[in-house]
Amino acid sequence: MPYTLVLLRHGESEWNALNLFTGWVDVALTDRGREEAVRAGTMIKEAGVLPDVVHTSLLRRAINTAASALDTADRHWIPVRRSWRLNERHYGALQGKDKKQTLEAYGEEQFMLWRRSFDVPPPVLADDDEFSQVGDAPYADIPDAELPRTECLKDVIERLLPYWESSIVPDLRDGKVVLIAAHGNSLRAIVKHLDGISDEDIAGLNIPTGQPLVYRLDESLRPTVAGGEYLDPEAAAAAAAAVANQGR
Amino acid sequence: MPYTLVLLRHGESEWNALNLFTGWVDVALTDRGREEAVRAGTMIKEAGVLPDVVHTSLLRRAINTAASALDTADRHWIPVRRSWRLNERHYGALQGKDKKQTLEAYGEEQFMLWRRSFDVPPPVLADDDEFSQVGDAPYADIPDAELPRTECLKDVIERLLPYWESSIVPDLRDGKVVLIAAHGNSLRAIVKHLDGISDEDIAGLNIPTGQPLVYRLDESLRPTVAGGEYLDPEAAAAAAAAVANQGR
Repeated sequence: MPYTLVLLRHGESEWNALNLFTGWVDVALTDRGREEAVRAGTMIKEAGVLPDVVHTSLLRRAINTAASALDTADRHWIPVRRSWRLNERHYGALQGKDKKQTLEAYGEEQFMLWRRSFDVPPPVLADDDEFSQVGDAPYADIPDAELPRTECLKDVIERLLPYWESSIVPDLRDGKVVLIAAHGNSLRAIVKHLDGISDEDIAGLNIPTGQPLVYRLDESLRPTVAGGEYLDPEAAAAAAAAVANQGR
Repeated sequence: MPYTLVLLRHGESEWNALNLFTGWVDVALTDRGREEAVRAGTMIKEAGVLPDVVHTSLLRRAINTAASALDTADRHWIPVRRSWRLNERHYGALQGKDKKQTLEAYGEEQFMLWRRSFDVPPPVLADDDEFSQVGDAPYADIPDAELPRTECLKDVIERLLPYWESSIVPDLRDGKVVLIAAHGNSLRAIVKHLDGISDEDIAGLNIPTGQPLVYRLDESLRPTVAGGEYLDPEAAAAAAAAVANQGR
């Protein structure tokens, strides 16, 4: 088992707590989210799966989750790399919308299509919308044509994989224990890629917040245990069920 | 004024509050230290001196000060670089000792020599001392002969300048606004280098915690204003006076 990868979805954010679609909107962690990050750091430390490098998105809920977890695990000093390619899925015109109201307004079928369809994105978010990130400083260097206005999971995979290959795989090949602190859908994209999950089956996969998921990878970067292993399997299963029921 | 550099000494740490010599011991910020970091971030944001890249030491009090200040300034997403070469001066056998007790035990002259002499380091810290960092994970890649057991300011300058030249200067030459979040003595080393302060005069220079110090540098990386400019000059002067009186 030459390579070790740890995936960590950020703790509860202010908009998780308000049940709003968040996407690229850069909301903060709640107190509970900060506690989840500290607990994740404790689990990482106790399991002895100590990251040598961390990759995060450009969103503060992932950045601060990584910082708290690593500080707790006494690994605050490791190198940090960040990329917009690890950002959450851009939720298009749904960004800032209430999940329950969206479910009631559009019905179960359309709601689940937007949440879990592999290749149907929500409607495009207008550049002058208050929840658009077009023109924001973190994304100033991205060519306009590459900057998302909405995304389905397929789009996330397409913009994430170049970063996986160019930045994460080299760290793994270097023998580093790699921590990725990111989001529900960017982590689903990585899991789909690693485990070879079909476009249909990925709809049923939910990743819980604040639960370190450890993959041991072989020389071909294939998981030695399909789906990886949560450091706290019971808590992870309960939290994943809660994610699946959002909006209800 | 082509280049902009912002220096930030970490906020109050647990051992600042206890009046102990800290050096390389990796103590946490106090609540007050965290508040100082947030205030520094607010100042940076309001002044519009927005960092494009941050350099920190490997010590959590600098790392967490940078993280809080940048989060407050909405610059949490910028690239991060870290190096042991930005660490605080290694205080040798004084690490973990009470400043007031040290002053009383050794007298004013010896105390000030250890604190402010340019080229007289405190006694060496034994590798098996509880406050030694020899063998600690953050420093595993440093050749043993380079790993300090005590340092005077001259030693700090010697181990810091290679990083200044190889990592910080290229970021400045790239036109990036560079934030360095570090420590009283590693920042004194940089200020001495930038302002060309003599070995004698540097003894009188104290850098306050949590006060952003902005240098505008010309093409030759010389300060356009000697000593740089604090974003809040009155608060910085009061805080520097408090540093000078430590141990009394």
